Amino acid sequence: MTLPPEFDLIARHFRPLAGEGSLGLADDAAVFVPPAGRALVVAADAMVAGVHFLPGDPAEGVGRKLLRVNLSDLAAMGAAPFGYLMTVSAPRGTPDAWFAGFAAGLALDQAEFGVGLLGGDTTATPGPMTLSLTALGSVAPGCAVLRAGARAGDGVWVSGTIGDGALGLDALQGRVADPDGVLAGRYRLPRPRVALGLRLHGVAAAAMDVSDGLVQDLGHLCRAAGIGAAIGADRVPLSEAARGVVEAGSVAGGLERCLTGGDDYELLMAVPAGREAALADAAAASGVAVTRIGRFEGADGVRVTLGGRVMALSRQGWSHF
Amino acid sequence: MTLPPEFDLIARHFRPLAGEGSLGLADDAAVFVPPAGRALVVAADAMVAGVHFLPGDPAEGVGRKLLRVNLSDLAAMGAAPFGYLMTVSAPRGTPDAWFAGFAAGLALDQAEFGVGLLGGDTTATPGPMTLSLTALGSVAPGCAVLRAGARAGDGVWVSGTIGDGALGLDALQGRVADPDGVLAGRYRLPRPRVALGLRLHGVAAAAMDVSDGLVQDLGHLCRAAGIGAAIGADRVPLSEAARGVVEAGSVAGGLERCLTGGDDYELLMAVPAGREAALADAAAASGVAVTRIGRFEGADGVRVTLGGRVMALSRQGWSHF
Repeated sequence: MTLPPEFDLIARHFRPLAGEGSLGLADDAAVFVPPAGRALVVAADAMVAGVHFLPGDPAEGVGRKLLRVNLSDLAAMGAAPFGYLMTVSAPRGTPDAWFAGFAAGLALDQAEFGVGLLGGDTTATPGPMTLSLTALGSVAPGCAVLRAGARAGDGVWVSGTIGDGALGLDALQGRVADPDGVLAGRYRLPRPRVALGLRLHGVAAAAMDVSDGLVQDLGHLCRAAGIGAAIGADRVPLSEAARGVVEAGSVAGGLERCLTGGDDYELLMAVPAGREAALADAAAASGVAVTRIGRFEGADGVRVTLGGRVMALSRQGWSHF
Repeated sequence: MTLPPEFDLIARHFRPLAGEGSLGLADDAAVFVPPAGRALVVAADAMVAGVHFLPGDPAEGVGRKLLRVNLSDLAAMGAAPFGYLMTVSAPRGTPDAWFAGFAAGLALDQAEFGVGLLGGDTTATPGPMTLSLTALGSVAPGCAVLRAGARAGDGVWVSGTIGDGALGLDALQGRVADPDGVLAGRYRLPRPRVALGLRLHGVAAAAMDVSDGLVQDLGHLCRAAGIGAAIGADRVPLSEAARGVVEAGSVAGGLERCLTGGDDYELLMAVPAGREAALADAAAASGVAVTRIGRFEGADGVRVTLGGRVMALSRQGWSHF
C-alpha cells in the first residue's frame, strides 16, 4: 500500500526536520518530558501570503521568517526555545520545490537556534498559503520578562535598528530604493534577539518584541504598567540604509514609517536607572546594540518628539482589522 | 490612546477564554509550570473554510470542531488536555457576531473538557477563514499510547460509530437525506474520546484517531507495526442514521463511503487477546461503545472483506494533495 500524496509530502520534506519527542511526525501528537524545573513559554503566530509575506518571496525565507517571528516572541519573555509545531495550509498545485525550499529554510534555522519540529498538520486551501507556528521554550520559574513592569523613570530602550522591515516591504513593492537589498533582507529575515532575551531577567523591568510598529507596541508596554512614555524620534536607531531613505525623503513621512511600520522584531525594554551597565553587558555579550530612546513618564499614552516638538502621527502601528 | 480594532476584538472575544498562564493574552507568550512529573503531549491541526467546514456552518460549531479535532489527537495518545493556543486568519469584514459565536462555542467546550486558551494570534486574510489550533496535554511518562505497537493476532477495535461524519458532509451538501440532522451533527461536532483515551494505557497496544478514513488510518497503524490487518466491513459499527443511508443506497457505495470518508474522530485500537475485558471496562466507564472489527495479521496492507469476499475500494481515505 503506497502512501497518499499528503503523507508522502510530509515524509519527504518535514520528517527530516523532526526533533526529539516528535515521534517522527508519524503519530497523533508529540510526546516529550519538558525541561526539568522550568516554566514553559509558548507562543503562536500565523503568516498569510499577501499579508505577512509576498507571494513571490523565496520559500526558504518564508520558512525562516515563520519560525523567527515566533522565536522573537519567546526572546521577549527571556525564554530559551526548544521546539515548534506548525500547520501549513497550501494551495493545491504548490510546487514540490516550494516545500523543499521552505523545509530547507527551517532546517537552517533549526540548526541556528537549536530547535526541532515536534508536529503539525498539512492541509489544502483554496486561498493563499497560510502558515501557523507554535513555538515552545522554557524559562526558570518566576524569571520570565513580562510586558507589565515598567515604572515612571525607567528608560525606554530598543535593540538593533528600527524601521528596516517596513522600509524593506516598501522596497520590495518598488516605493523605496534599496540598491544593496539590505532593507528587503531585513523584511524577509528578521533577527530574533534570543541571546539578548536570555540575559534580560533582572535587567529589564518589562519587555516585548516590536512587531506591529514601535509607537503602538510601546503603547502596549505603557498600558500594561498603567503609565505613559515619551521618546525622541531622533534618538530611535536607524540603519544606514534606513537613514538614507529617510534623508532622501523617498517615502512620504519616512521617519514616521520607521516608527509605526512594524516588522522590526527588535526588543523594546523598560530598564530602571542603575541597570544600564547590566544592559550594556547583556547587549555586548549578545552581539547586538541597544539604544535608549526615551523614558516612561506621565499617566498614559506615548508622546513622540522631534527637535523639541511633538510629532503628530497619522497612525500608531499596524492593525489587521 | 484607544486600542486598535485588532486588539479590541481580541479583548472582547478571546480574553474571556484566557486560561491560567495565558497572562490575559496580553503578553508575547504564555508562561506556565507544566504538570509535575508528567510528559507533555502536543498536537496541532488546521481547519480551512470550504475544506474542513462549510462557510455557512454556525460559528459556534466551528470553534468547537477546531478544538475537538485536536483533543481527539490527544485522546488517541491517552493524554489529559489542559490548554491550547490558536491562530485565526479571518477575512476582512468578518462580522463581529461570527467572532462572538466562535468564542461562545469555545467557551462551552473549555468547560466540558477542562481546557483554557493560552495564546495565539489574530490576522487578516484575503482568503477563506483559516484556523489553526495547538492543543497541550499531559500523560504519565512512558504511558502514552502510540501508533506503533500492534502485533499479529491483536484485535482491531473502534469506538462509537464510523461513517457518520462523511455522510453528514454529504447530507449538508444535499446528497443524502438526514431528516433528523443526526449525520450533519456528527460532521459538525465530533466527540473526542478523551475519557476512553485516558483509560487505554495497558489496554490498547496501539491507538490513533480516525480522521482521514478508517481504512487509510488503519493502514497507518499497520505501517507503524510492520504488519497487515483484515477487517469485516459488516462488523464496522454504523449508527442507525448511517445504516439507513447505506441500506437505502442513497450514496453510491454507501458502505465504502463510511469506511473511507473520514471525519469520524473515533479511536482505532489494537487490543491484544486477554485485554478485551479491560477494554470493555474502560469503554463502560467512559460511556462509549467499542467494537471489534477484525484482527492484525499478514505482512502489510489492509484487507476489507464483506460476506466472505474482498471489497475492492476505489480509495483508502482522504488526502489533501
